Amino acid sequence: GFAKVDTHRPLRTGEPETVFGDGKTPEQLVAITERLLAARPGGAVLATRLRPEGLAALRSGFAPVETDESGRTALVGTPPPARGTVAVVSAGTSDQPVAGEVVLTARAHGLGVVPVPDVGVAGLHRVLRARPALAGADCVVVVAGMDGALPSVVGGLVPVPVVAVPTSVGYGAAFGGLAALLTMLNSCAPGVTVVNIDNGFGAAVAAARIVRAGDRREA
Amino acid sequence: GFAKVDTHRPLRTGEPETVFGDGKTPEQLVAITERLLAARPGGAVLATRLRPEGLAALRSGFAPVETDESGRTALVGTPPPARGTVAVVSAGTSDQPVAGEVVLTARAHGLGVVPVPDVGVAGLHRVLRARPALAGADCVVVVAGMDGALPSVVGGLVPVPVVAVPTSVGYGAAFGGLAALLTMLNSCAPGVTVVNIDNGFGAAVAAARIVRAGDRREA
Amino acid sequence: GFAKVDTHRPLRTGEPETVFGDGKTPEQLVAITERLLAARPGGAVLATRLRPEGLAALRSGFAPVETDESGRTALVGTPPPARGTVAVVSAGTSDQPVAGEVVLTARAHGLGVVPVPDVGVAGLHRVLRARPALAGADCVVVVAGMDGALPSVVGGLVPVPVVAVPTSVGYGAAFGGLAALLTMLNSCAPGVTVVNIDNGFGAAVAAARIVRAGDRREA
Amino acid sequence: GFAKVDTHRPLRTGEPETVFGDGKTPEQLVAITERLLAARPGGAVLATRLRPEGLAALRSGFAPVETDESGRTALVGTPPPARGTVAVVSAGTSDQPVAGEVVLTARAHGLGVVPVPDVGVAGLHRVLRARPALAGADCVVVVAGMDGALPSVVGGLVPVPVVAVPTSVGYGAAFGGLAALLTMLNSCAPGVTVVNIDNGFGAAVAAARIVRAGDRREA
Amino acid sequence: GFAKVDTHRPLRTGEPETVFGDGKTPEQLVAITERLLAARPGGAVLATRLRPEGLAALRSGFAPVETDESGRTALVGTPPPARGTVAVVSAGTSDQPVAGEVVLTARAHGLGVVPVPDVGVAGLHRVLRARPALAGADCVVVVAGMDGALPSVVGGLVPVPVVAVPTSVGYGAAFGGLAALLTMLNSCAPGVTVVNIDNGFGAAVAAARIVRAGDRREA
Amino acid sequence: GFAKVDTHRPLRTGEPETVFGDGKTPEQLVAITERLLAARPGGAVLATRLRPEGLAALRSGFAPVETDESGRTALVGTPPPARGTVAVVSAGTSDQPVAGEVVLTARAHGLGVVPVPDVGVAGLHRVLRARPALAGADCVVVVAGMDGALPSVVGGLVPVPVVAVPTSVGYGAAFGGLAALLTMLNSCAPGVTVVNIDNGFGAAVAAARIVRAGDRREA
Amino acid sequence: GFAKVDTHRPLRTGEPETVFGDGKTPEQLVAITERLLAARPGGAVLATRLRPEGLAALRSGFAPVETDESGRTALVGTPPPARGTVAVVSAGTSDQPVAGEVVLTARAHGLGVVPVPDVGVAGLHRVLRARPALAGADCVVVVAGMDGALPSVVGGLVPVPVVAVPTSVGYGAAFGGLAALLTMLNSCAPGVTVVNIDNGFGAAVAAARIVRAGDRREA
Amino acid sequence: GFAKVDTHRPLRTGEPETVFGDGKTPEQLVAITERLLAARPGGAVLATRLRPEGLAALRSGFAPVETDESGRTALVGTPPPARGTVAVVSAGTSDQPVAGEVVLTARAHGLGVVPVPDVGVAGLHRVLRARPALAGADCVVVVAGMDGALPSVVGGLVPVPVVAVPTSVGYGAAFGGLAALLTMLNSCAPGVTVVNIDNGFGAAVAAARIVRAGDRREA
Ligand SMILES: Nc1ncnc2c1ncn2[C@@H]1O[C@H](COP(=O)(O)O)[C@@H](O)[C@H]1O
Ligand SMILES: Nc1ncnc2c1ncn2[C@@H]1O[C@H](COP(=O)(O)O)[C@@H](O)[C@H]1O
Ligand SMILES: Nc1ncnc2c1ncn2[C@@H]1O[C@H](COP(=O)(O)O)[C@@H](O)[C@H]1O
Ligand SMILES: Nc1ncnc2c1ncn2[C@@H]1O[C@H](COP(=O)(O)O)[C@@H](O)[C@H]1O
Ligand SMILES: [Mg+2]
Ligand SMILES: [Mg+2]
Ligand SMILES: [Mg+2]
Ligand SMILES: [Mg+2]
Ligand SMILES: [Mg+2]
Ligand SMILES: [Mg+2]
Ligand SMILES: [Mg+2]
Ligand SMILES: [Mg+2]
Repeated sequence: GFAKVDTHRPLRTGEPETVFGDGKTPEQLVAITERLLAARPGGAVLATRLRPEGLAALRSGFAPVETDESGRTALVGTPPPARGTVAVVSAGTSDQPVAGEVVLTARAHGLGVVPVPDVGVAGLHRVLRARPALAGADCVVVVAGMDGALPSVVGGLVPVPVVAVPTSVGYGAAFGGLAALLTMLNSCAPGVTVVNIDNGFGAAVAAARIVRAGDRREA
Repeated sequence: GFAKVDTHRPLRTGEPETVFGDGKTPEQLVAITERLLAARPGGAVLATRLRPEGLAALRSGFAPVETDESGRTALVGTPPPARGTVAVVSAGTSDQPVAGEVVLTARAHGLGVVPVPDVGVAGLHRVLRARPALAGADCVVVVAGMDGALPSVVGGLVPVPVVAVPTSVGYGAAFGGLAALLTMLNSCAPGVTVVNIDNGFGAAVAAARIVRAGDRREA
Repeated sequence: GFAKVDTHRPLRTGEPETVFGDGKTPEQLVAITERLLAARPGGAVLATRLRPEGLAALRSGFAPVETDESGRTALVGTPPPARGTVAVVSAGTSDQPVAGEVVLTARAHGLGVVPVPDVGVAGLHRVLRARPALAGADCVVVVAGMDGALPSVVGGLVPVPVVAVPTSVGYGAAFGGLAALLTMLNSCAPGVTVVNIDNGFGAAVAAARIVRAGDRREA
Repeated sequence: GFAKVDTHRPLRTGEPETVFGDGKTPEQLVAITERLLAARPGGAVLATRLRPEGLAALRSGFAPVETDESGRTALVGTPPPARGTVAVVSAGTSDQPVAGEVVLTARAHGLGVVPVPDVGVAGLHRVLRARPALAGADCVVVVAGMDGALPSVVGGLVPVPVVAVPTSVGYGAAFGGLAALLTMLNSCAPGVTVVNIDNGFGAAVAAARIVRAGDRREA
Repeated sequence: GFAKVDTHRPLRTGEPETVFGDGKTPEQLVAITERLLAARPGGAVLATRLRPEGLAALRSGFAPVETDESGRTALVGTPPPARGTVAVVSAGTSDQPVAGEVVLTARAHGLGVVPVPDVGVAGLHRVLRARPALAGADCVVVVAGMDGALPSVVGGLVPVPVVAVPTSVGYGAAFGGLAALLTMLNSCAPGVTVVNIDNGFGAAVAAARIVRAGDRREA
Repeated sequence: GFAKVDTHRPLRTGEPETVFGDGKTPEQLVAITERLLAARPGGAVLATRLRPEGLAALRSGFAPVETDESGRTALVGTPPPARGTVAVVSAGTSDQPVAGEVVLTARAHGLGVVPVPDVGVAGLHRVLRARPALAGADCVVVVAGMDGALPSVVGGLVPVPVVAVPTSVGYGAAFGGLAALLTMLNSCAPGVTVVNIDNGFGAAVAAARIVRAGDRREA
Repeated sequence: GFAKVDTHRPLRTGEPETVFGDGKTPEQLVAITERLLAARPGGAVLATRLRPEGLAALRSGFAPVETDESGRTALVGTPPPARGTVAVVSAGTSDQPVAGEVVLTARAHGLGVVPVPDVGVAGLHRVLRARPALAGADCVVVVAGMDGALPSVVGGLVPVPVVAVPTSVGYGAAFGGLAALLTMLNSCAPGVTVVNIDNGFGAAVAAARIVRAGDRREA
Repeated sequence: GFAKVDTHRPLRTGEPETVFGDGKTPEQLVAITERLLAARPGGAVLATRLRPEGLAALRSGFAPVETDESGRTALVGTPPPARGTVAVVSAGTSDQPVAGEVVLTARAHGLGVVPVPDVGVAGLHRVLRARPALAGADCVVVVAGMDGALPSVVGGLVPVPVVAVPTSVGYGAAFGGLAALLTMLNSCAPGVTVVNIDNGFGAAVAAARIVRAGDRREA
């Protein structure tokens, strides 16, 4: 047997079912996904940290399904209609996999997503060019490795919450994302909070709760 | 001369003026506060990380003024009327100073605040007793030192964003808050984001942006 | 030749013979196990950290034999009849291998074992559901990775000794189990002690000594 | 006001009331101790991490009272009659304060205590001389700083549980007790578990639960 | 007696005499300075890391003399006429002491200095406002604590060498300047090199050599 | 699609186009290189961190092309004529790959390069033998792993800027280059600045800016 | 080409030629060894950190030759006749490879070697059994991983210099040998000095110099 | 009462009595010293880590007595006549206190001592000037903080054992001596072994054993 599926939390918190793909066989992934879909017909299931064969199994086994290969993520079934917007800003090409995990996770939670890639702080014109895209967002997720300086710059440009995701991109004194993590925790920009290294999933869940924070108040 | 005061950012982001008290003389604190109040009549000025004599100078020099001695924070002038609610959950007596910084900072940003102190994870009845207080909040800030386990428990109980503040409370392998920080970054509860050790100010600013995220959407 | 087998310690301490499987060939494992069984006829030999081929060699080479594949552990021969009970609580699916090492090691030491899997702190109902299972135990071993928060919660629920095992489960700021280790060392729950990361073996040996502490006093 | 006193936990777990003295005024200490004694007449209250003036206030304010100045601990009232024995082994003169905290805490929990001081591993004759004292104990607490090697040696000599307490004694690469902590976590002696640096209190609580583990089984 | 003064290195490398003030008495400072001035009449002596009484002794004992109290530095005698320009950019008020050490050290080495204070990355308008000041410099020294993000931004704006100085400004996960140091070492901006935490002296010496690198080629 | 190529920065800063080869397929490498050459005819493209197949693809696909297999670097097209000289000193055989990255990067930036290999500090005669080669350089790059002591020695011998590159060469307490990095940051030799571990590219870019610093002043 | 061979140092220090095998091809190893033997006919060459194919090449290419497969070391040619004795004490089976590197290196330097394997501190009888073997040694090298406690115990038993070698044996909080390294640096036994993790070679060279220290004085 | 004095070890190992002064009152120091002298009439007692009042008490209470104020060490009574020589090389002025602890400790052990101060690696002429002083030594102790590079250079110059003592001198990334410690552990010079940060005492004891290693062989 494999992991007992907790079908209660999504009901309690309104969040979609998620499968952590790392270490699960393609067969397990398909079986878990089927069970989760059966428990909430018409809903969606998100799978993250998939190895290529797991991702392939979900892509050929279900419809509709959307996958992000470099992001190692699959979204099976129909997510809720988009409501509210998150901008997903990333620093470099190598940060794309983590940004991809943010994007599909956010979509699975019923968020509209505006990707803003390739915004390096060493090229301020690129940061400034991104401002219009940031203006309409209810929340901004910033994904950056190496020096992790991007959230400090973005945090000063927008009046909405900024969720910073350090990535393990880099070498040497990047220490597997530690350097970027510390930078972000010490950001002097207001309103920046931080998640674990490479945790695109967690950042998107936080973003969804942030956008829903407004919904709740309206109701 | 002392620090050039940036009176522009609050205008841009709608956030109150704040003075970082650490290393400033009582005279400097009073002078800066006067200048900031003059620039935005009827507004409020927040001062954090005050030493006793700085806090005393602000308390006797201005009215209205609210101060938190253990939290080393003062709120001078009239904050915006409260709109939206943040619950400020803390673990132990020694975490109170940081929780106090969260409370006054949140009030300065126009948030309603519900303090929920003394919620240790080793006494689950206290956590369960806190549920009603948490139920009405738009955002929860959780302040905890030592093992830093509280946000993981709270994060599973509420559907709103959780901002976790590790404190430097503890000794030995607490390593000045590092243990609590790592715990929080690795929390498996959904929707938890983290700020720097002892950074009650930053957590409250993030909470204010989160609550305002809803306001923006309503407008 | 290979490792000189110390057949004296078990006699001195009453503990079963144990082979550390890591780095030993299947042939060495079988030969060592034979020698140890011969030295104490009717006794049991425990082998841990086995690679698949080593585990297979023991399974086909001896009877009776019990194996745990994910836990990489084998129990050859007949352990002492169970006396006293240890509950083995674990947090998530990925912590199962370490929990499995605890279970077979405890059985090899003549303990009754009650496994209590899938007790995440972010789902308090699961913790509360586990209380009856914990009530009858003489000692509780808690296995958790990532935030390592579970022992803090369990430690507040039971009046018996709690042995905490951090696991290397997690990524990024989990730092290979360091985060969970620090959490557990800083637990504010009374009666919690800690062993090395992933050291299910050591936790079970400690549990056996704890349960035997009572036996000694009775005699 | 000061800390809300939780008078429930001792009832639940059978453990004595304890006050963490660090950061409390002598007046607060006396007041809290009075309240706790009133709630359980004939019982005992333990206070740890006392500053000299706090310790003096308790010594002159209550009777019977027992204090350990270097250990910064006071035991007010009458502890339960001793039942079961813990040996408290310590390495050097500078480790005495932590050993002292173990001793008074253990006595407050109703344990018989056998102190075994000055057992440095660099003088094996001293270790061997300690064997008779260790022989009768139900549990051994080992307190050591610097290299923290003592639990590894003691763990091989006794068949009972060993609780290791690293201390912050040392300089340079002792890193405030980190070196001793890591040594103890990596001990190859069976049955050794570890608590936080300088946490004599926690070690004694664990020892009390270990000794009680036997009592429970007898009942 | 006190430190043997090495009057050879300045002759070899053309750099001014420098006294490391930390741990020297006012009397020692005055005596060393006299000796160094006597050895190179008409030259200059730089003293860094001065405590207030040492700085006062130099100020009243020599003329001409220039001192920076917060920067704890004194420049005694007449430095070489300025040739080439270094811009000294700093992030916040608390970074001023280190920036001050850079400024006086650079002047002692015969550099023209353009101070550019209060350039926080969370306020891009301030960075952009600094561009003209940076345009004329042969080398830029950037001083920043906390997130240490400023050199990454400045490095993308200028075509000259950038020497980054992390400061120990910050708290918690700033870890005494480690966070800023790692940020700077991982900067993706081209041409950034880094010196030790708070080492304004070293940065200015490097800047002087960089500017002289041009002089040498011209000769 | 692959990385958006930023063809603007080189124009702004006068630096050659560079491709970070790590994680790119041979096809991507060839395509990007073609595009970059087309954008600046007669110019040069530098590719670093190439895997063998990527390096082979560039070598057979372009002419003129210069490659360094151990240094994993290729220089395609015609670099600017050499102007100014950098000496590249390295400590041991294992540091050669990083030294090689320095050499080709420096050539791509139009620097003359003098390689000075095998200069271990434990053989002072080798250091002294290197002095003539160092004498003519405008800037010295020093590449060393393990103890990283070489820049301290070289920094005392030359009057020009020294850029130190720690390498990940070593084992055990070398901690992947951390030991050498810390040594270099603490160098007491004047004028030493440091780049990230194994960052030969960054050191060479800094050297080019340093040498150009002189050019600018001359113009 | 490959590494320039420094044939001078052995002449200066009287130490044998040594080849660091890691990263060298079998062909390179054979060629270097031939050259070194030719330069000192009748002498010996030591090769360490050999991969299996390199070790095989030396074994079949030269005579006399002695090899240690697990220790990855080969001794080619005729070492000087043994003079003085080093005891090589090791803790567990897994420490044997490093102990093997010590043994062959010591023999290459003309030392008599007494191996004392399997001396775990958790089995004091094994330590005591080793005393006669230690009694005759001029120097003791102690090799231990995990808790690294052995040198503290041995250091108290012998009056000669003790060189401690931490190994990377262990898991979790062993942190690749860091735990053992810190233990050894904090040893309270007199006369213990420490080398890098897994550096059996360095320990043996130090032992040779120590034994030769006596020879020098006699001459 | 205070520390039980172990008067056995010196008898066993032939080493002088030593008192660790840190944390002992002047009265305790005098009393312990008297007792130790009484136990071995005509012998010597060494006291280290003395605070000024403790050092003063020993200086006025005993004769003959030799003290080193900056080194915080006192040598009471008559040490054995010098036999064999240790050179004590130190890097900078601030390393003198630790070098002083080495010198008096070595003298207490009956070694001849040649102090070689102010040998910075950034001034090779000073290193070369020290060669004659090093030539006659049986063992060299090298004391250095900051980059800790000096033992690597000295290790290549002498054929005798080198004991390296890292000091806590430095700031920022010196991390209290960690940087120098790692440098020394990674030294590529042959025959270098390392003791704890600031442990001048331990280095001298090791040196004494090294020099005695020769004596033993001669007997
Ligand atoms: N990429 C991720 N990082 C962290 N947690 C995740 C990730 N993906 C899924 N999860 C969590 O893993 C849980 C499912 O784990 P499992 O039952 O092992 O599949 C979900 O409820 C999420 O909370
Ligand atoms: N998983 C484990 N973790 C730590 N120690 C173990 C483990 N399994 C066995 N051991 C220890 O390893 C010893 C046997 O080692 P060996 O002689 O190498 O097989 C046993 O006596 C146990 O103390
Ligand atoms: N702030 C500083 N940081 C690092 N090194 C310094 C500093 N100030 C002076 N120095 C160095 O200290 C040397 C003088 O040291 P001293 O002889 O002890 O006064 C100078 O030659 C400089 O190399
Ligand atoms: N500076 C020092 N560093 C480390 N250990 C020391 C030092 N000075 C003395 N010791 C040790 O401390 C022991 C005496 O400790 P005590 O009985 O507390 O005075 C001696 O036997 C030495 O082994
Ligand atoms: Mg970035
Ligand atoms: Mg907590
Ligand atoms: Mg967990
Ligand atoms: Mg110890
Ligand atoms: Mg800053
Ligand atoms: Mg900054
Ligand atoms: Mg080197
Ligand atoms: Mg040095």
